[in-house]
Amino acid sequence: MLYDLIVIGGGPAGYLAAERAGHAGLKVLLIEKNKVGGVCLNEGCIPSKTLLHSAKVLDYAKYGGKYGVKCDAIEYDHKFVVARKNKVVNTLVSGIKMKLKMNKVTLVEGQAMILERTLEGFKVQVQEEIYIGKRMLIATGSTSIIPPIPGVEAGMKKGFVLTNKEILDLEIIPKKLVVIGGGVIGLEMASYYNSIGSQVTVIEMLSKIAGGTDHDISKLLMKHYEKKGIEFKLESKVTRLTDTQVIYEADGVEHQVDCDKVLMSIGRRPVTTGYGLENIGVELDRGAIKVDEQGRTNVVNIYAAGDVNGKSMLAHTAYREAEVCVNNILGKKDVMRYHAIPNVIYTNPEVATVGETEETAKEKGMDYSVTTLKMNYSGRYVAENDDGDGICKVLIDKKYNRLIGVHMIGNPSSEIIFGVSLMIETEMKIDDIKELVFPHPTVSEILRENIFS
Amino acid sequence: MLYDLIVIGGGPAGYLAAERAGHAGLKVLLIEKNKVGGVCLNEGCIPSKTLLHSAKVLDYAKYGGKYGVKCDAIEYDHKFVVARKNKVVNTLVSGIKMKLKMNKVTLVEGQAMILERTLEGFKVQVQEEIYIGKRMLIATGSTSIIPPIPGVEAGMKKGFVLTNKEILDLEIIPKKLVVIGGGVIGLEMASYYNSIGSQVTVIEMLSKIAGGTDHDISKLLMKHYEKKGIEFKLESKVTRLTDTQVIYEADGVEHQVDCDKVLMSIGRRPVTTGYGLENIGVELDRGAIKVDEQGRTNVVNIYAAGDVNGKSMLAHTAYREAEVCVNNILGKKDVMRYHAIPNVIYTNPEVATVGETEETAKEKGMDYSVTTLKMNYSGRYVAENDDGDGICKVLIDKKYNRLIGVHMIGNPSSEIIFGVSLMIETEMKIDDIKELVFPHPTVSEILRENIFS
Repeated sequence: MLYDLIVIGGGPAGYLAAERAGHAGLKVLLIEKNKVGGVCLNEGCIPSKTLLHSAKVLDYAKYGGKYGVKCDAIEYDHKFVVARKNKVVNTLVSGIKMKLKMNKVTLVEGQAMILERTLEGFKVQVQEEIYIGKRMLIATGSTSIIPPIPGVEAGMKKGFVLTNKEILDLEIIPKKLVVIGGGVIGLEMASYYNSIGSQVTVIEMLSKIAGGTDHDISKLLMKHYEKKGIEFKLESKVTRLTDTQVIYEADGVEHQVDCDKVLMSIGRRPVTTGYGLENIGVELDRGAIKVDEQGRTNVVNIYAAGDVNGKSMLAHTAYREAEVCVNNILGKKDVMRYHAIPNVIYTNPEVATVGETEETAKEKGMDYSVTTLKMNYSGRYVAENDDGDGICKVLIDKKYNRLIGVHMIGNPSSEIIFGVSLMIETEMKIDDIKELVFPHPTVSEILRENIFS
Repeated sequence: MLYDLIVIGGGPAGYLAAERAGHAGLKVLLIEKNKVGGVCLNEGCIPSKTLLHSAKVLDYAKYGGKYGVKCDAIEYDHKFVVARKNKVVNTLVSGIKMKLKMNKVTLVEGQAMILERTLEGFKVQVQEEIYIGKRMLIATGSTSIIPPIPGVEAGMKKGFVLTNKEILDLEIIPKKLVVIGGGVIGLEMASYYNSIGSQVTVIEMLSKIAGGTDHDISKLLMKHYEKKGIEFKLESKVTRLTDTQVIYEADGVEHQVDCDKVLMSIGRRPVTTGYGLENIGVELDRGAIKVDEQGRTNVVNIYAAGDVNGKSMLAHTAYREAEVCVNNILGKKDVMRYHAIPNVIYTNPEVATVGETEETAKEKGMDYSVTTLKMNYSGRYVAENDDGDGICKVLIDKKYNRLIGVHMIGNPSSEIIFGVSLMIETEMKIDDIKELVFPHPTVSEILRENIFS
């Protein structure tokens, strides 16, 4: 069967590209080996946010006294929460399937194997069937990095060591959980299990948590978690695992932490093997598919989008990359920009950031000013957060008088940050931002306060 | 004492104008007869949001079972909540006083009386002191409308009838509360007291609640409240009050509702008397001070901002109007625009809207398209709202391919709407909005979904 476009991988990049291309009238085949929705929907963003929302509701019940609501007999039903999570995921997977259908996309569930390039197009096999695509979009995503640390492989077989996938389906609450890697996934799960009763230790190789997040925000976030009882071992390197312990080295000294579960969350790597990429000569760069700003690989008519290009590893980046690919396929030139893509950590409190940090601005030699305001400058934040210590940090390019970075910790910054991305993306002048009307009282007003301060 | 600027009224318009003018180096006097912060901070926005947040925490405790959190013994301490509200207000009032001080504004607490215009400037008396201002900004705000309905005045004296001011300090929870007027203030208080246990009836003269809010949103909001137990009497006119009843007329028939408290919330009117406005000939228009788009009254060097100009009656409008006045005073031409000012109802669920409704777009003869999407298109909304039925309605001007109105019901739309105001205010093209990256998963993505649908 001949298609205008074959998409391999049904995650955010893949399903969105298929929808958009189908909507534009192309004959589209989408191949997914597991479940449509990809890691994001099935084992990532959505399941974790569902769990975290329950943890937030639990936090409200536990600390409701601050707001005049006393709950004496609180029961947390983790099994129910996991079941609800599955329900939410299934609802959303059905939604995507419906949208694919509406856009006349053919969905094939199975492992794709790219066989060769012919005059007609790219030949792809799934089970016994052969499909030919005039163009192809690779959107095979990423997978958890499993480091060659002694004891990890054995631990995974026994269910002692988990990745982001398994931990979301854990029906028991571990007494002691060790999280290896203090990036976003690690922190979200640490926060969740801490809230529902696990004793959590996070082991991180670097000197701070949350990866490239602004250092002040990272520090404040860690302070919050520590207050809630999470232990952090920074600048610590895991050297081996026993059946019940994680052994790590810090300052040249060996330490150990007892635990009943370990979450391995040191990062993710693009999936570039197992589906015949090598048969058509697609070029890789440090393990990721190399693409230009239009999403094109080195092979004409083959595009790649999402985690597999190794650029940003975020679902929303994948969406936009997918759109860029489809637009270019349709002959409408479009290019990908990465400077205004927001980052969110969905713990309680939330962290949301976009644009340059002080570190990256310095590296780039930008002439910037920075102001940091307590979230308490927002009346609504004060009304909704007893003893809230959130901050909002704003970086302004002095030469162009434009916003270049905003970094927030405090709820609900995840829902505010898109507006900041918009300001950065459209290169709004500070003077124009000053003329905007923010509804009062909202936490979003902190932006305005900060820009006027 | 001679001042560059005398500001009468220390609410949002007044304190912000004083801060900004002081910051710019003007010698500023701010006169406030009650408490700095005005109605918004002391008897409006902030206190109500503090109460509503506690109600939301209570809702989470009550309905937490949906998210796996069961609370069996829930106690709500309304007195504590009112005390906390006062603490929040005091914190924020102190914050404003500090900012006024930082900006070298002189604050005088007392009743202002404008005496006359002299060659030097405007003479204003407070207690025994006379102050002279080269320019003056009137920001005296608004007050609750008390209709001449039999029984209301007597009811107010006895504490049976309350306004937005008194209801915020009520230390008991009324068994039966009647809210006269189903606008924003009425609904927020109805929602609060319903959540904490009152039996609430809302009596509204019009055929829908929430004033000019989009009809679909208004309907959905009412459905929500009804599900929670609030009763609505639409197209109903209150004719008189007894000591324990509200008598109203609907369809020509007289009805009554028993109650122990009545909230009178039929609207607000500008405060234009009692401080000598008539002594300097400032022109009014239907009870409000008449201003041009730069905030100037008919009297040279007298400006007015905030509720007293009768235009929008929102704190955030007042902020911007105050800025416009100060900018013009400083010789920097600035004009007020009203088409992108957001409106929020802070009940649970929240409502947030901005721009044209279908009704106003039709009136203006605009050629628009409208799409309505369920909030369930957002994965995060599904994760955080069991059985959520929120919607997002988007109006697009077909001629200019621009956003002209967005209407949302669902949490946390109050924190999302500023970004929509931004899109409308900057006249972004739909094609440019399509290129924005919204963080996934967030409720804010519903905008993107809607624009692509």
